[in-house]
Amino acid sequence: MPQGKVDPANIPDDGLTTRQRRMLPITAVHTGPGKGKSTAAFGMAMRAWNQGMRVGVFQFVKSPKWKVGEESVFKRLGQLHEETGEGGPVEWHKMGEGWSWSKKAGSEEDHARDAAEGWQEIKRRLAEETHDIYILDEFTYPIKWGWIDVNDVVETLQNRPGTQHVVMTGRDADPKLIEVADLVTEMTKVKHPMDVGRKGQKGIEW
Amino acid sequence: MPQGKVDPANIPDDGLTTRQRRMLPITAVHTGPGKGKSTAAFGMAMRAWNQGMRVGVFQFVKSPKWKVGEESVFKRLGQLHEETGEGGPVEWHKMGEGWSWSKKAGSEEDHARDAAEGWQEIKRRLAEETHDIYILDEFTYPIKWGWIDVNDVVETLQNRPGTQHVVMTGRDADPKLIEVADLVTEMTKVKHPMDVGRKGQKGIEW
Repeated sequence: MPQGKVDPANIPDDGLTTRQRRMLPITAVHTGPGKGKSTAAFGMAMRAWNQGMRVGVFQFVKSPKWKVGEESVFKRLGQLHEETGEGGPVEWHKMGEGWSWSKKAGSEEDHARDAAEGWQEIKRRLAEETHDIYILDEFTYPIKWGWIDVNDVVETLQNRPGTQHVVMTGRDADPKLIEVADLVTEMTKVKHPMDVGRKGQKGIEW
Repeated sequence: MPQGKVDPANIPDDGLTTRQRRMLPITAVHTGPGKGKSTAAFGMAMRAWNQGMRVGVFQFVKSPKWKVGEESVFKRLGQLHEETGEGGPVEWHKMGEGWSWSKKAGSEEDHARDAAEGWQEIKRRLAEETHDIYILDEFTYPIKWGWIDVNDVVETLQNRPGTQHVVMTGRDADPKLIEVADLVTEMTKVKHPMDVGRKGQKGIEW
């Protein structure tokens, strides 16, 4: 069956109308060793912003330079929303130097604590339906390193209220995350310029 | 070797400094059956816009609904550039009803002609260095269908002047495109909600 076509024999017997099914929350995972996992997630957030959705980005990364382009554009889109009502509101949080909502500054030793604290905050927001789409960027790593309990993540995602979309990125996604997701894409590296010693490019890599 | 790290033994003996190498034009292909090929390309364009690059998007597709979210956001970003000088200028062209620069309206029978005409225009722009980054969305299909000669594409890309980045998307990329590209990512479908009869979601799929 070609992708993008719905097989009528395959329509779920869930008693929902097509319209109701369109409003189901999406749980997506972008994983694999290739490029584009985060970039595609931010592209989804861009579409969601355009539909007036409330965007929440949570970056479980440390690099200060990486993805600064996206952050800058999304902050501008959030500002546009405030000024003109276009699109939706945007919140962009990163773990870099402790989370921005936290009074405590993060420290080199406390990445595990920072990651766990980030997840607790996301849980609270999911319970309160704070955002319409959550981008949990590089979220697979704190799970892999045991800083965040994957069973807690799975249970939280399964029981979240409303129609909040959640997109998670990062390599080596836990099989339980794959299981709970309904949209999983693996990005495979075929060729990368860094393989031949080229450096990241301004405007392309950040 | 972990991705993202440069193996010093692998730095090319090309006589270029790191800074010069950073300014080399990137030729990227996003292919494979999974989601995120175009979305990741538009994410790259977003970063490029943020760096003040001149963005040119060329969509070799017909669907009126698909990707309308990205188009809307990029047109807004282009407008922001005109009003405030932020970011770079944006041009967004689609083949849908004939190309926007063309006087002739496209017709059902003339997709092959329209695609070839689109490529000729892109060639002219590459020669004149009109844009800093070109997103050739769904470009693999007119090549696959024989509407655009892959050898002409390869030769044009190899000989393009300056530091113009080119990102091409679509399934079943011709092996010659893979060969000429220096950044190739394959998006593999692991799971897709349409497999279980779910419809596209507003704000997620468009």
